[in-house]
Amino acid sequence: MNATLRIPFETLHTFGQMNVHLTHELQNVMATISETSGLLEDLAAFRTSGGGVDPARLEKLLRRIGEEAGRGQRLVSRINSLAHSTDAPAIRLDLGRVVRFMAEVSSCFPKSRTIRLDICDRCVALDAAPYTVQQLLYGCLQAAFRGLAPDQEVALSLRMEGNICVLRLSGLAKLAAADQEEPFPDRPTALAAEALDATLGLDRDAGILTLHLQCVTGGD
Amino acid sequence: MNATLRIPFETLHTFGQMNVHLTHELQNVMATISETSGLLEDLAAFRTSGGGVDPARLEKLLRRIGEEAGRGQRLVSRINSLAHSTDAPAIRLDLGRVVRFMAEVSSCFPKSRTIRLDICDRCVALDAAPYTVQQLLYGCLQAAFRGLAPDQEVALSLRMEGNICVLRLSGLAKLAAADQEEPFPDRPTALAAEALDATLGLDRDAGILTLHLQCVTGGD
Repeated sequence: MNATLRIPFETLHTFGQMNVHLTHELQNVMATISETSGLLEDLAAFRTSGGGVDPARLEKLLRRIGEEAGRGQRLVSRINSLAHSTDAPAIRLDLGRVVRFMAEVSSCFPKSRTIRLDICDRCVALDAAPYTVQQLLYGCLQAAFRGLAPDQEVALSLRMEGNICVLRLSGLAKLAAADQEEPFPDRPTALAAEALDATLGLDRDAGILTLHLQCVTGGD
Repeated sequence: MNATLRIPFETLHTFGQMNVHLTHELQNVMATISETSGLLEDLAAFRTSGGGVDPARLEKLLRRIGEEAGRGQRLVSRINSLAHSTDAPAIRLDLGRVVRFMAEVSSCFPKSRTIRLDICDRCVALDAAPYTVQQLLYGCLQAAFRGLAPDQEVALSLRMEGNICVLRLSGLAKLAAADQEEPFPDRPTALAAEALDATLGLDRDAGILTLHLQCVTGGD
């Protein structure tokens, strides 16, 4: 307890970045709710002063508020889960679950993205810092989304090879030479990979990114 | 750029804790909006099938949604500002502004608290990591709130003495002996104080907590 565990600043930075993106989405949600309820209040006030609220319009606007509130609840729940990932410096993780969560978190930025998941059923356990695993996955997914057309989707598979867990992202865009110059992994991702003793590979021509990670249990 | 700046795990943990508290508040906001709009949808559906929506009730429920949306926007904006505090490892800060922000962030948990602010007008500048300053202030405010009755308020003053900035929290509860055993500062706060070369003092009998911090500019 006396020894202070130190983590790279980049871990906190990545954590902040994820929250920045999620709160931007949430700001849009709150603005829509606020505007829609304001519009309804105007309509209701107009009605009491002799006008009328079209029932179909009323229901449509209320449905919009309900839908946005649902979207807001999902976003808040993600920010809350991210926040709880800092509860302890290391725990036993269900990697499949963390991958699902990060795919969910990452799919809304930089813009809405589709990720097709194929995650092996067997529980893949890992003793690690949840925030570091999240940082690594976030870095991989952000790299996978680079240069992707809006209609393109990325496929993510998670498989065990002995006690090595192999995460594979395929369907990545073939980037122009200028874009290819951006190094992969970037510094936060490289630091997370180093901390987890993970191996990263990116084949831009084939459009495939791989991540090898030593796990506690496994074997297909 | 090659040297990796390392920060204590506790910094990330405190950051996470603040987000946990803020998202709990936000979950309540979203739940209220969702329930109220659901109730309105039911009322509207009833109306179209022959019933009637009482205009006063309609307006009351819409006002509630609008108010909660406003509260939600303020909470989201705080989470967003916290997230942006991880943008850079050190910047020139306006300490008065950071204190105001942290008073705002901290006043909603553990439960709603009143903090009377008295912050000197002169810009108090500090070259430091915003998240570390926030962590220190958060730790002080949490300690100041301990054992406080719901109707008690804490007074916070910020003054310059030469180029030392003195933050003083007064009106703290006189805790029972058992409660006094909890050490102050706790570990995250002590680490933040150490990183900022700040001096902390707590006089539980007088109900006063002080923080001395070296600043870049100042002098009353």
